[in-house]
Amino acid sequence: MNTSQSIKKNASFVNKFLRKELKGEPKQLYDAASHLIIHGGKRLRPYLVLKSCQILGGKQSDAIAAASSVEMIHNFTLVHDDIMDNDEMRHGVPTTHNKFDVPLAILAGDVLYSKAYHTISSKSKLSSNYTTQLVARLSKACVEICEGQVDDVKLAENKRIPTEREYIKMIEKKTAVLFEVSCAMGAICAKKKPKDVKNLSSFGRNLGIAFQITDDLIGIMGDSKLTKKPVGNDIREGKKSLPILLAIRKARGKDKQKILKVFGRSNSTKKDIQSTVNIIRSLGIEDIVRKKALQYANRATKSLDSYSGTHKKEMVSLLDFVVKRSL
Amino acid sequence: MNTSQSIKKNASFVNKFLRKELKGEPKQLYDAASHLIIHGGKRLRPYLVLKSCQILGGKQSDAIAAASSVEMIHNFTLVHDDIMDNDEMRHGVPTTHNKFDVPLAILAGDVLYSKAYHTISSKSKLSSNYTTQLVARLSKACVEICEGQVDDVKLAENKRIPTEREYIKMIEKKTAVLFEVSCAMGAICAKKKPKDVKNLSSFGRNLGIAFQITDDLIGIMGDSKLTKKPVGNDIREGKKSLPILLAIRKARGKDKQKILKVFGRSNSTKKDIQSTVNIIRSLGIEDIVRKKALQYANRATKSLDSYSGTHKKEMVSLLDFVVKRSL
Repeated sequence: MNTSQSIKKNASFVNKFLRKELKGEPKQLYDAASHLIIHGGKRLRPYLVLKSCQILGGKQSDAIAAASSVEMIHNFTLVHDDIMDNDEMRHGVPTTHNKFDVPLAILAGDVLYSKAYHTISSKSKLSSNYTTQLVARLSKACVEICEGQVDDVKLAENKRIPTEREYIKMIEKKTAVLFEVSCAMGAICAKKKPKDVKNLSSFGRNLGIAFQITDDLIGIMGDSKLTKKPVGNDIREGKKSLPILLAIRKARGKDKQKILKVFGRSNSTKKDIQSTVNIIRSLGIEDIVRKKALQYANRATKSLDSYSGTHKKEMVSLLDFVVKRSL
Repeated sequence: MNTSQSIKKNASFVNKFLRKELKGEPKQLYDAASHLIIHGGKRLRPYLVLKSCQILGGKQSDAIAAASSVEMIHNFTLVHDDIMDNDEMRHGVPTTHNKFDVPLAILAGDVLYSKAYHTISSKSKLSSNYTTQLVARLSKACVEICEGQVDDVKLAENKRIPTEREYIKMIEKKTAVLFEVSCAMGAICAKKKPKDVKNLSSFGRNLGIAFQITDDLIGIMGDSKLTKKPVGNDIREGKKSLPILLAIRKARGKDKQKILKVFGRSNSTKKDIQSTVNIIRSLGIEDIVRKKALQYANRATKSLDSYSGTHKKEMVSLLDFVVKRSL
């Protein structure tokens, strides 16, 4: 089975569980809570929970509740983020507050969050010793995600271009934390020792960083058909991501002036954006960023050195899949 | 020690724990999360957790983490409710989104919610068997609170005046659920059997209903110095609470017309509101509503029939305190 097939198979397993958990009254609350979920998604985080459990010899059935709860948490953050950022569309569909309204979207996020903890604590047969570890890990990760979100806004509001170190720190909290905890939870569901939990956590964290770096590259240079956003969308929005901060540091003279002029200006023309993308391309930023993502991917692979078998192979293929995504 | 003193003593114990848990970086996130908490509050829900534990012979130290987490949950609901209702003031201070901004208030609520689960799962010495029960109960309660909030909005938007039954059902989910789970959690922290958890839950649920009925009476007829809101505020806002729905049902002729004309009209004059309050008073609504609250209070007391001792006495005094609050 190739990675795409493996992802699809796991996603349909997770979707079945999610559909059952996200039913209830009042219907409009659960419609709002399910809105983004039913419109697709690869279920990457649940995949990490399930595969981390299986790499260590654990049973899928012991990890499905945790896997689904992580997807609920992920969607809770998306729904609330979209309100905070005032975004109208996500992955080609209206955001939850746009399709429904802000109060219902806030509650949709809150109920997803509540269901996540309810699912972990009452929909699995794991002994309570492991359940408590899952709750402690997941809630700590959620605290960090909230903190990261505030850091993110502060970084965006600050006129200064962040350093690479600040960027990595920000995406660690914003993205990598949930990937990390997904893998840690999978290891806990396999009833494994702290050392295994640590190895899998390290895999998840590094994969998460590689994922976000790649995502940010796509946000600048990606094909608009794949991203479902206009070309160079992150340039227009002034998103301080790695490709742009490297480009600003590397560019000289007129090129630098051009990037700084277009970056974050909402009324930039298509032509302006395209010529900025061309400058960034000519600076060789794609290569540099790809290499950076690969560094983290290699660290991730190294964390799995002591394991073998089909599931490990599938996990490493996922890493490849994530980092080598086409633009 | 009288009830007021007992409440104060417990509140300072809880506040000390909360202050420690709600510190962190970025500071502005934790400032926003603590904003309503540091401006006072009786800590009634933590009081219920601690006393429920003690009635059953449990130790306060086993219940303090759960008690504090319930207060975090309560504040999380307040912060998000204020955004949804677009309220500017609460208990005489600016609401969180008013003092900070909407995105930070959403995150402040989310971090309070995350901290609640983190506190339960990692800041107590209870064995994980009990911790898992706490998480399962609390998360189920939170799901119900979200559902109740949507029901509440639906009831408010519907032009029809609700029946008493619909009103009770609504306040059960909106208020009583958190009182109920507070008592249940206290019983679990005392490591007690399902029968005790059930008795204490029943106490909390009935106390919660009596509390909300009394609160709604105060919202119509309360002294504005005590409520920190204009006289008859709930009449102007069109809040469909028990006193108003009983008054509309009981009034006849011109009185009925007057109530229906003023109710929910934001530009009603002070004089209009005052004469409506006078009509409601002349209909004897206060007596009827007080009796209704007392019915639930009596049910609550009955749930504690099999217990005795100082802590039980204090809990029954609290009930009196809640139901006999002056207008």
